[in-house]
Amino acid sequence: MKRTSFAKWPCSVARTMDLFGDAWTPLVLREAFYGLRRFDEIQAGLGIARNTLADRLRLLVEEGLLEKQPYQSEPVRYDYVLTDKGRDFFGVIAAMMAWGDRWLADEAGVPIALHHERCGHDTQAEVVCAHCHEPLTASDTAMRMGPGYPERLAARPDVQARFAGRSA
Amino acid sequence: MKRTSFAKWPCSVARTMDLFGDAWTPLVLREAFYGLRRFDEIQAGLGIARNTLADRLRLLVEEGLLEKQPYQSEPVRYDYVLTDKGRDFFGVIAAMMAWGDRWLADEAGVPIALHHERCGHDTQAEVVCAHCHEPLTASDTAMRMGPGYPERLAARPDVQARFAGRSA
Repeated sequence: MKRTSFAKWPCSVARTMDLFGDAWTPLVLREAFYGLRRFDEIQAGLGIARNTLADRLRLLVEEGLLEKQPYQSEPVRYDYVLTDKGRDFFGVIAAMMAWGDRWLADEAGVPIALHHERCGHDTQAEVVCAHCHEPLTASDTAMRMGPGYPERLAARPDVQARFAGRSA
Repeated sequence: MKRTSFAKWPCSVARTMDLFGDAWTPLVLREAFYGLRRFDEIQAGLGIARNTLADRLRLLVEEGLLEKQPYQSEPVRYDYVLTDKGRDFFGVIAAMMAWGDRWLADEAGVPIALHHERCGHDTQAEVVCAHCHEPLTASDTAMRMGPGYPERLAARPDVQARFAGRSA
């Protein structure tokens, strides 16, 4: 069954999840952040079925997060390398990792530590305001219609109520 | 078909995606961040099938991101309210929104603006190091085994290579 597409919703969360609404997709990308580039390495690292991996790699290439670079001819074989768009997704992965560390770790502690080589400390991601650099929370932010919000939706009373009424 | 479970993998990204490896789940949570609490409001807002919504709400309650608070008896009806664990997921949503705004917006511009009431500016999420507060990028971080990494895996040569070799 074809699932609902969120690619055209006026919401960047929906559009992003339309790409990542499958647990394998970010995990394949995670492998790229570990420096893995080859089909067989990624397949062994994740224990993923070959057809599933081929499918997710094709999606990530089509969407421009990975690009194929031939490393051998006859037969041609490819490395899968992060693009700028793919590399920029690291922040989302790091934010997810921090939340999972806080809420899903068992008594043994966090499974993986994120070491920040630049400052020399084991650290965690923190999500802050790009303007004032204070942590962003649900209670001190509000969603507003942006320039790309569709006019036909903007006039609807239920949509106006949504943007007026937020108080999580 | 039951999909692969990632809940016990030694990786907070995998564990988090085990919860969110479905596009509807974070979108239901998004509705909670807009302040929506009632089944019918959320159903109308997302245009989601009732059985799908019931399923995702049950998951979010079971996993402790939402809690049910009765607002009426005979018949009993519930509000779905964010817990601390659910509210804390806002950072991940905000990081996703920023990435989607940068890479998935069309010429019209971003669909929704995030307004930071605390500083008074329309802003974007930025993912920084909790220690030095500089932006976290793939190239200046390294993954290391944490205290919760399983010993039986830690000894494997392929796992050691993974943690030694990362260079994305």
